Amino acid sequence: MKKVFTYDTTLRDGTQGEGISLSVPAKLRLVKKMDMFGMDFIEGGWPGSNPRDMEFFDQVKKLDLKHAKISAFGSTRRANTKVEDDSQVAKLLEAGTPYVTIFGKTWLLHVTDVIKTTAEENLAMIEDTVAFLVKSGRKVVYDAEHFFDGYKDDAEYALETLKAAKRGGAEFVTLCDTNGGTLVDEFSEITKKVVEVMEGLPVGVHCHDDSGLAVALSLAGVASGATMVQGTLNGFGERIGNANLCTIIPNLVLKMHCELACGKNLKSLRDLSLFADEMANLRSNPRLPYVGASAFAHKGGVHADAANKVKRSYEHIAPELVGNKTRVLVSDMSGRASIMMKARELGVDVDPKDPALKEFLDELKNLEFRGYEYEAADASFGLLLAKFLKQHSDHFDVLGYRVIVERNEVSGETRSEASVKLNIGGTVEHTVAEAHGPVAALDFALRKALVKKFPEVKDMELVDFKVRIIDSGAGVNATTRVSVESREGKDSWGTVGASDNIIVASWEAIKDAIEYKLSKDD
Amino acid sequence: MKKVFTYDTTLRDGTQGEGISLSVPAKLRLVKKMDMFGMDFIEGGWPGSNPRDMEFFDQVKKLDLKHAKISAFGSTRRANTKVEDDSQVAKLLEAGTPYVTIFGKTWLLHVTDVIKTTAEENLAMIEDTVAFLVKSGRKVVYDAEHFFDGYKDDAEYALETLKAAKRGGAEFVTLCDTNGGTLVDEFSEITKKVVEVMEGLPVGVHCHDDSGLAVALSLAGVASGATMVQGTLNGFGERIGNANLCTIIPNLVLKMHCELACGKNLKSLRDLSLFADEMANLRSNPRLPYVGASAFAHKGGVHADAANKVKRSYEHIAPELVGNKTRVLVSDMSGRASIMMKARELGVDVDPKDPALKEFLDELKNLEFRGYEYEAADASFGLLLAKFLKQHSDHFDVLGYRVIVERNEVSGETRSEASVKLNIGGTVEHTVAEAHGPVAALDFALRKALVKKFPEVKDMELVDFKVRIIDSGAGVNATTRVSVESREGKDSWGTVGASDNIIVASWEAIKDAIEYKLSKDD
Repeated sequence: MKKVFTYDTTLRDGTQGEGISLSVPAKLRLVKKMDMFGMDFIEGGWPGSNPRDMEFFDQVKKLDLKHAKISAFGSTRRANTKVEDDSQVAKLLEAGTPYVTIFGKTWLLHVTDVIKTTAEENLAMIEDTVAFLVKSGRKVVYDAEHFFDGYKDDAEYALETLKAAKRGGAEFVTLCDTNGGTLVDEFSEITKKVVEVMEGLPVGVHCHDDSGLAVALSLAGVASGATMVQGTLNGFGERIGNANLCTIIPNLVLKMHCELACGKNLKSLRDLSLFADEMANLRSNPRLPYVGASAFAHKGGVHADAANKVKRSYEHIAPELVGNKTRVLVSDMSGRASIMMKARELGVDVDPKDPALKEFLDELKNLEFRGYEYEAADASFGLLLAKFLKQHSDHFDVLGYRVIVERNEVSGETRSEASVKLNIGGTVEHTVAEAHGPVAALDFALRKALVKKFPEVKDMELVDFKVRIIDSGAGVNATTRVSVESREGKDSWGTVGASDNIIVASWEAIKDAIEYKLSKDD
Repeated sequence: MKKVFTYDTTLRDGTQGEGISLSVPAKLRLVKKMDMFGMDFIEGGWPGSNPRDMEFFDQVKKLDLKHAKISAFGSTRRANTKVEDDSQVAKLLEAGTPYVTIFGKTWLLHVTDVIKTTAEENLAMIEDTVAFLVKSGRKVVYDAEHFFDGYKDDAEYALETLKAAKRGGAEFVTLCDTNGGTLVDEFSEITKKVVEVMEGLPVGVHCHDDSGLAVALSLAGVASGATMVQGTLNGFGERIGNANLCTIIPNLVLKMHCELACGKNLKSLRDLSLFADEMANLRSNPRLPYVGASAFAHKGGVHADAANKVKRSYEHIAPELVGNKTRVLVSDMSGRASIMMKARELGVDVDPKDPALKEFLDELKNLEFRGYEYEAADASFGLLLAKFLKQHSDHFDVLGYRVIVERNEVSGETRSEASVKLNIGGTVEHTVAEAHGPVAALDFALRKALVKKFPEVKDMELVDFKVRIIDSGAGVNATTRVSVESREGKDSWGTVGASDNIIVASWEAIKDAIEYKLSKDD
């Protein structure tokens, strides 16, 4: 088995992505999580670039890491200065990490036009900086920026820059496809050549997804002899993003049978991915390979019916291997088998021979025809099923509700008022509330009516509200589907409503959300 | 230059994706857009699977397509029946398309365990069905399901299935990596072998992104001799999704220098991608390669400062080639130049030195910040611009409006009433109307107020109504964007409204739609 090292740059290159930023505590939590996972190298930031990164390096020293090596990222020395006098290089030492990663120029265009120096001085800058860091007790990873563009422009010079890093004492040289433009075949060919020329010095690859190929390039790099893969969690990074380690790692372990330190912890890969989103305060992308919520979600009925052996053949790996699971999407294609599976998933007790199940299936079809969709509305689905099975009755009866929206264009004022009338165990509650919009007003009025009897309604919140027009050809008479996501602590649940009246659809989704909360508490 | 055909299955395989559904009018609009773009084949749906797909095929016949060939998708005949007696196959003919795409089994595991028949009967099913369709005047694409898994299990049998399709008279055979599990090298090797064995019969590839490799596989397929690539717009599809044609197409044209019919329209690629999201009512993913809003977005200052030649080296292609643009992520100036372009497109006369243009740009930024989006709302954009340039004044002034929705859960009755008060050239019109929902009621009341003075409002209809929640984290207080499409004869126009009150947002879009109609008639 070929040994491959994983090198994470979520904390540095990852934060170059649009809308991605990580606080120092978030970075530290991510480091601990990645260390436990078995990540080999973690690039922490550029200590010369901002104070926040320096604070991180101060803090990270205090962590008791089991496996991961922290690296500080920076540049080669400036042109025509002594490396000892370069303040940016000094900061790299100050960071106090076991590893330092420095990047340098490969492409002559950048040597002459960006750092405005000579080809020779650039080579000296690389060798000097690596040698100085090594002499100062650091292990060094040398990142060759724009390597593939540089190589295609002048292969000999590109290789000279790597040799300079090798002479300086670098432990790894990394080939960076900085603008993400390289295709797989040329990437493989060039990497093979470098591995040959480096004569045993380990080679890494660092890819970006601008051509949609970052994962393929990273794997091609390994197949061509590279033994380190740089990337980020969930592919965070500038523009389209860096190579996604959460995709690369399972590909290397499960399909290319490489030896990775994190290989034994693959089952926590999905957790790690979700954790990274949480730290970056991002909604997680359901469509991430291996770890996304949709990665093993099936609409078709075939898969649900088929025997286990066949079912597996519709999934490229067993989802459990990466901590994920098969999901059956309740949609208009599904039959009794998938309903049974879904019921089990929701913990609802169903006898497959119960005649109520047939009634439920008929009602479900009818509801789906009318615009309801239960894919993201487990709570509504569970309530409906439990009602059919006589395992649930609502905590309150709705007698009626009313919404008024009044707009005065002369004064520019808008008023939204909602009133709600409930029967709660024999007591009629009639409440009214105002808000910016009619849906918020309804939500307030409903809670106002419930809060005396059920003060726990205050503990939940509606965090997401989505509206979808279904038969969009029907103009203003179209059926509207409203989906609501609610949350209480770590728990979240989805509900749905549908109607040709947008207020009625919204009401249904809100009412289910609150009913589910109350029944959950029983 | 190698000629490659593009085959889109957004309307069929794309809608297998979680949360992706397309109404019949949306499918038809997508077909027109893809036809204009130069897509070679468009798979419309599975006529046997649901009534909605059959309705699509009835409608699509009426479109006057310039280039694209529509294909109906389905399965080979059932085992042990005559193909003439197979109702699913009959429906494929009924769809009346020039092409039919049928899928069949490659993998013996599926032959014996899913369709429960023999290896021989499976070959007969493939050959019979293709031959029958060809005899009935259709051109046939044969999709070999699970081809790569089947090939790895029993290469000889896998090739036999393709030969059966060839004997039947298929025009293309497509190798499907159905569960998305194949790696690039084995994919290339197998595709090469098939191309060789097929002796000149064109070969297609159909990939899924479960291993994060769908784009790489598709390109490897072409490099290995395939001449058709199947995929979807924005990679819509089951689980992680299908191969993304919006990434594959520019890679083939710009980097592999293949000849594609859509190659000359690459500049409208980003438009096409946004349009697909709009039709599916999805928020567009900024991180899509080539077409995403972040694809050429730079955080670093280097890129902004550097000379043009160097700046270009930080981008793998010139963004304009795919209709995208470089964005510097601090100041997001959209720019006077693009406004001028848009104005010309809309036939609004603008002097670039007019100071009103600056005011308009400021207001536009403000409106976009508040949730308005004009990409699909040319009419609202044009009205706004014309007002700023003092080239337009409204045909009526709105004094106010009111909506009441009343729901009686005891009787099951819902009542929606809207009243509207307008000032039309000094005359106050105050009208009231009822409808199923509040938006329809508002529309009726507004027309009722206008019809005496402007009887032509009866000639237009609102054909499409879309609601989108923008800041979906904000729960019930979220900002809502409403988009309306209106039509009169062959003419159609889009308008937009945005507000944290869904009724107000709807009103704005409806009002603009009607105002545009009146101003268009002047």
